[in-house]
Amino acid sequence: MRFAFLLLFTAGALYAQPRARDLGVPFEGTPGPLNAITDVAGVGVGHTTLVLGSGALVVGKGPVRTGVTAVVPRLGATDPVFAAWYSLNGNGEMTGTAWIEESGQLEGPVMITNTHSVGVVRDAVIAWMVENYPEFRWALPVVAETYDGVLNDINGFHVKPEHVFTALNTAATGAVPEGAVGGGTGMICNGFKGGIGTSSRTLSSEHGGFTVGVLVQCNYGTKAGLHIAGVPVGREIKGPGLCVEGDVPPSRENLRSLPTCTATNGADKGEDGSIIVIVATDAPLLPVQLKRLAQRVPLGLGKLGSIASTFSGDLFVAFSTANNGLIGREPATVTMWPNDRIDPLFRATIQATEEAVVNAMVAAETMTGADNIRVRALPHDELRAILTRYNRVITQE
Amino acid sequence: MRFAFLLLFTAGALYAQPRARDLGVPFEGTPGPLNAITDVAGVGVGHTTLVLGSGALVVGKGPVRTGVTAVVPRLGATDPVFAAWYSLNGNGEMTGTAWIEESGQLEGPVMITNTHSVGVVRDAVIAWMVENYPEFRWALPVVAETYDGVLNDINGFHVKPEHVFTALNTAATGAVPEGAVGGGTGMICNGFKGGIGTSSRTLSSEHGGFTVGVLVQCNYGTKAGLHIAGVPVGREIKGPGLCVEGDVPPSRENLRSLPTCTATNGADKGEDGSIIVIVATDAPLLPVQLKRLAQRVPLGLGKLGSIASTFSGDLFVAFSTANNGLIGREPATVTMWPNDRIDPLFRATIQATEEAVVNAMVAAETMTGADNIRVRALPHDELRAILTRYNRVITQE
Amino acid sequence: MRFAFLLLFTAGALYAQPRARDLGVPFEGTPGPLNAITDVAGVGVGHTTLVLGSGALVVGKGPVRTGVTAVVPRLGATDPVFAAWYSLNGNGEMTGTAWIEESGQLEGPVMITNTHSVGVVRDAVIAWMVENYPEFRWALPVVAETYDGVLNDINGFHVKPEHVFTALNTAATGAVPEGAVGGGTGMICNGFKGGIGTSSRTLSSEHGGFTVGVLVQCNYGTKAGLHIAGVPVGREIKGPGLCVEGDVPPSRENLRSLPTCTATNGADKGEDGSIIVIVATDAPLLPVQLKRLAQRVPLGLGKLGSIASTFSGDLFVAFSTANNGLIGREPATVTMWPNDRIDPLFRATIQATEEAVVNAMVAAETMTGADNIRVRALPHDELRAILTRYNRVITQE
Amino acid sequence: MRFAFLLLFTAGALYAQPRARDLGVPFEGTPGPLNAITDVAGVGVGHTTLVLGSGALVVGKGPVRTGVTAVVPRLGATDPVFAAWYSLNGNGEMTGTAWIEESGQLEGPVMITNTHSVGVVRDAVIAWMVENYPEFRWALPVVAETYDGVLNDINGFHVKPEHVFTALNTAATGAVPEGAVGGGTGMICNGFKGGIGTSSRTLSSEHGGFTVGVLVQCNYGTKAGLHIAGVPVGREIKGPGLCVEGDVPPSRENLRSLPTCTATNGADKGEDGSIIVIVATDAPLLPVQLKRLAQRVPLGLGKLGSIASTFSGDLFVAFSTANNGLIGREPATVTMWPNDRIDPLFRATIQATEEAVVNAMVAAETMTGADNIRVRALPHDELRAILTRYNRVITQE
Repeated sequence: MRFAFLLLFTAGALYAQPRARDLGVPFEGTPGPLNAITDVAGVGVGHTTLVLGSGALVVGKGPVRTGVTAVVPRLGATDPVFAAWYSLNGNGEMTGTAWIEESGQLEGPVMITNTHSVGVVRDAVIAWMVENYPEFRWALPVVAETYDGVLNDINGFHVKPEHVFTALNTAATGAVPEGAVGGGTGMICNGFKGGIGTSSRTLSSEHGGFTVGVLVQCNYGTKAGLHIAGVPVGREIKGPGLCVEGDVPPSRENLRSLPTCTATNGADKGEDGSIIVIVATDAPLLPVQLKRLAQRVPLGLGKLGSIASTFSGDLFVAFSTANNGLIGREPATVTMWPNDRIDPLFRATIQATEEAVVNAMVAAETMTGADNIRVRALPHDELRAILTRYNRVITQE
Repeated sequence: MRFAFLLLFTAGALYAQPRARDLGVPFEGTPGPLNAITDVAGVGVGHTTLVLGSGALVVGKGPVRTGVTAVVPRLGATDPVFAAWYSLNGNGEMTGTAWIEESGQLEGPVMITNTHSVGVVRDAVIAWMVENYPEFRWALPVVAETYDGVLNDINGFHVKPEHVFTALNTAATGAVPEGAVGGGTGMICNGFKGGIGTSSRTLSSEHGGFTVGVLVQCNYGTKAGLHIAGVPVGREIKGPGLCVEGDVPPSRENLRSLPTCTATNGADKGEDGSIIVIVATDAPLLPVQLKRLAQRVPLGLGKLGSIASTFSGDLFVAFSTANNGLIGREPATVTMWPNDRIDPLFRATIQATEEAVVNAMVAAETMTGADNIRVRALPHDELRAILTRYNRVITQE
Repeated sequence: MRFAFLLLFTAGALYAQPRARDLGVPFEGTPGPLNAITDVAGVGVGHTTLVLGSGALVVGKGPVRTGVTAVVPRLGATDPVFAAWYSLNGNGEMTGTAWIEESGQLEGPVMITNTHSVGVVRDAVIAWMVENYPEFRWALPVVAETYDGVLNDINGFHVKPEHVFTALNTAATGAVPEGAVGGGTGMICNGFKGGIGTSSRTLSSEHGGFTVGVLVQCNYGTKAGLHIAGVPVGREIKGPGLCVEGDVPPSRENLRSLPTCTATNGADKGEDGSIIVIVATDAPLLPVQLKRLAQRVPLGLGKLGSIASTFSGDLFVAFSTANNGLIGREPATVTMWPNDRIDPLFRATIQATEEAVVNAMVAAETMTGADNIRVRALPHDELRAILTRYNRVITQE
Repeated sequence: MRFAFLLLFTAGALYAQPRARDLGVPFEGTPGPLNAITDVAGVGVGHTTLVLGSGALVVGKGPVRTGVTAVVPRLGATDPVFAAWYSLNGNGEMTGTAWIEESGQLEGPVMITNTHSVGVVRDAVIAWMVENYPEFRWALPVVAETYDGVLNDINGFHVKPEHVFTALNTAATGAVPEGAVGGGTGMICNGFKGGIGTSSRTLSSEHGGFTVGVLVQCNYGTKAGLHIAGVPVGREIKGPGLCVEGDVPPSRENLRSLPTCTATNGADKGEDGSIIVIVATDAPLLPVQLKRLAQRVPLGLGKLGSIASTFSGDLFVAFSTANNGLIGREPATVTMWPNDRIDPLFRATIQATEEAVVNAMVAAETMTGADNIRVRALPHDELRAILTRYNRVITQE
């Protein structure tokens, strides 16, 4: 096996990907121009995607289906943002949360990768900050993960510091590549191919005119539980979401029961995934208010059928780009949006979370990974047909 | 005005009330025999319902539309149960939570009443425990609330200690009266008349054969946001949920914009409600596991359209009746259900929460309260017709 | 028994009480002019003290040794303050904390009373707010407690709404009566007579010139564990802290082992107390920062020998009077003190907590209560002699 | 500079180090035979100590003063222990806490290293578990840190996976090397040389006969604030704790104000340290009870003068080795020690925390690191002399 990575520098021209609302899936609320977390001014996203090799899993030699995603709250600036986090189910890692909880601030990027590469990403962020942050002394980087060990040679530790630097250095505003990119490369979402998804909502001027953007790395759930627009589409879509191409069963004990891809039925994959959700807003919210946003994420996931399985790391972080000058030795003057008018921001968070997950699934294409395990893309036409049967599709002129 | 209360001792024969699944609303999972929190063996429920007077609000003189509900974890016993709690939105009161958090135990009943009667109920529970608990020294009772001040003369403080004693002394197993009873008497749920609702799920023997029961006091949400079975029924049901009978607008500034009941349209009531959710199970869960159940409640509320408004007190408590002997000076031997098999309990909690809310709405009848404000019952036939249009009704033979 | 209360309206001239530093106890830091929580401008304190009867405990008939203390963050104003709370050990009640946690705000007074009177005080605060707050709709009052059932007929429920109104209406700036007053009337602190104590620290202009004030209701701890100024004074002071006058043992099973007051030795009372700590500051701290102040309180209690017993309700609330205009529908402009300069506020909180506890003990006089149980005042001369032996007394010229 | 590490495999014969009670420092309670965390049966400790080079700081080239410490809850076994954690001040990292909080369990070792090596240690633990854990699928390792960047070339990232493996593979029962070893190699504690310290307490059979062991990596605090045995020894000890040998000031801006080592006075180092505390016990405590132990750690630190500075990562984890069989698919039968008898375990935690910190300081020897910065050992004789002046020394026959 030739061991050179295919590095997709995904800040480029990939935004021809279809998105959920293109298929007529109904969502509530008004998205921003990009319908992405980057609708929040200043937020940048960068992906490093690692796809290499095929065939049987050989630890340390692939196949590789993984990557790193960087979400930078203030592109080109290093001052902190107010932030908060919430764990719906803590079978996951998000480093740096003790300081978010203590200070109410996020002092660098939020990174997402696979479960076994959190460490390398974390220390690489520090190395990157040593270079890029003025008067740097120490850092407690925020790195989250989901598990891509079904498709990816996760114990091969294929993410390297340079992949982290690339994700950070290519982080950009503009359209965000979705699906099997960056940290989401090898992920499985509600039984279909998943990965990175994003969405946004804008509020009317009466409600402050703010934007809420959400980015998810979606790797949780089962096909059986999937609801879209309130419709139980998971159980209506025919055939298995995961299967094995060819006759050789996976080398891993827990995956041997996967059906072959010619089967018309087959057991659902179990609940061993996770979802990381990043909520960004330009509304001037204090940390105590951003925690409330993070705590609304489950209300969106509930609609999709999530049970927040015990095997799932469902960790959410929310930040606001609104208030500057939070660091240093001078008192800061900050703006606080009134609690009495915060409901539209709650609603926007829930709506954008729901849509970001469906966007991740709609964008991701079928992928075959380690041990010839294939994870199927959500079938667009079948989804649309099912929604039509339930009177829940939007027909465009 | 004659000031004698109509005390409905509701442990009686009221279970002819219709329930959500009687209307063909689809739910997932298998309910217990009563489809109620009392399917968990030993759990008792008692209501004291206070309905008196009509017409204009005169503080201290009514009209009265309030009450007290008691949920007793171990009827006839006084030893604690393992417990945990979670606040989705803390604009509400649940006393006694510091000790639940600290000890992982619940040492008495859980009471629910109106916002301004939490105090009287709390101290009355102590007085009741002085009489009923052996070697009693002090207590930190758990009392929760939602706000019934739209229909009820809440500042008249009409709940008295004897109403608390009655709810506790009549707490019983068996069918649980739902709708406008007990603490739920004056409540408004998703824009329609709400109150108390309950539901349960039983698990197969493969999953331990346990029961999860949920009881809600539902007073949150807006008509516009209501989804049932994934269908946006709230915005499809015609006419306002709240209105004023006759020509005299309410005496309260914030309610003057309510439409008259002959109007065919009208503004939705705002988000000034709350929901208390009590989750009971006989599964042998530790406190750390019960907190996980409490944290799954939002996944059920999300399906119904909840945004957990800033004006809402969304407070949840979960307890397990499984382990005895938790108090005293001897080490206790307790059973812990494995985390690896806890998902079915999560799913049951979500399912029963969703159904309990709909049950509260289906059971509650139209009520007219203070200032001739009328809150409409959820229209059963219209609901059924809407669900049919969305291919989401269950037709029984 | 004549059943009329002795109401001590304690906002008057009682400040001739001795205080800890008058005895030469060394403390660090610089107190404010009053060395009291009222050094924080705008903070008012009011006490209602209930002392009536003597002799055997007859439930409902006394003797009465209890009361109510009100701490009002902004005397004469009704807008909220930023706030946070922390539970070191949750065997206690502090109502209203779900909303403090959620909103980061405290919207009324903080009340302290006995364990079994929290309810009556809570509802009375609502009744008082109905009268005194503009456009009042609902409230979630903050009421905390400690247990005075050793000296007081706690199950007699002697605190009434009028006692609450009195504490609130007489709340005043100026010197704060300490010891056996208000909610602290019947309390026992580190094995000696305790109750209310207060202290403050002022910071140099380099550190912002702020004031931190602390008020405690001290009812925790054992004589054996008491340290003052690092010296194990508890075990050095001779004789028991609690005893029974005369030959009749207490009617309560758990107190029958108390020594008679003529004994020279005797078992220490157990750890069934609690401590409520209120931290006030005029430093412009956000809620996330005030939580940090609340979490520093244990560092002060640790010095005194606290173990935060399982039987103790050690609940702390911190608020800042600095930022106004936190309520309503307009965005608020608030000032945030930088985290990088917050350490002096941490230190001040710890120092003032330590001194407030010692002040409560120094001020309180020996009291005899129900069942002729006597709780001894901390002996001033003996304390001073012990500190001298340990080279830890301050000698004034 | 030759770049080969001096690896001190510290499980050897280093226990001739002096300890605090050898100097006559008074402590309360009864230590176990080793007065170490390893008095809790089954707990193993391993250190990898990295000391290399001297002179000016050259990033990536040293000098190196750092390492890794492993605390293994069950030597030779892989089943989880019940656990809980608490953050007194979150300016630090402890990975894996989301799962501890969620599950109440700790599934591998607790590692401690420097701030910028948490990542490499974390991923290396996974690699080690891949080799050593049966049916391994994924892991969320617990790795904590404090900042050694004053003495150590922290941005040189000198900790490598093999150092982690060594610490894990040499983890052993028996005496625990203290001071400048393992993760504590380059640490500064209360202004003097610090690092690893440990202590234990055993309870009488009346209290269950349990052991509580504590291990700290001590890097917090200032000389000015240090109290030992209640005596303000920090301000009484003459001369600076940190200084620069020779005439060349440190290359780092924030350290340029350090005095030269020939000075007799000098500014204290600031509060940029941290302390990690690991509490182990064989008492059968549930997760909810272990959290209580973790929350008692501040009561011990308070006695030493800690203010839990904003610059400090004060993170604590507590675990119990008592209950086995917590993983898998069968219900576990576990023992719970009664809350009513938990106070002695609280007291033991506080006492052992206090002593472990002093032990770390007593064991550590003066060290010179990067930029010729010298951190002085706590002077034993001077300490003893000061304690004698305050009548707080224990004189042995």
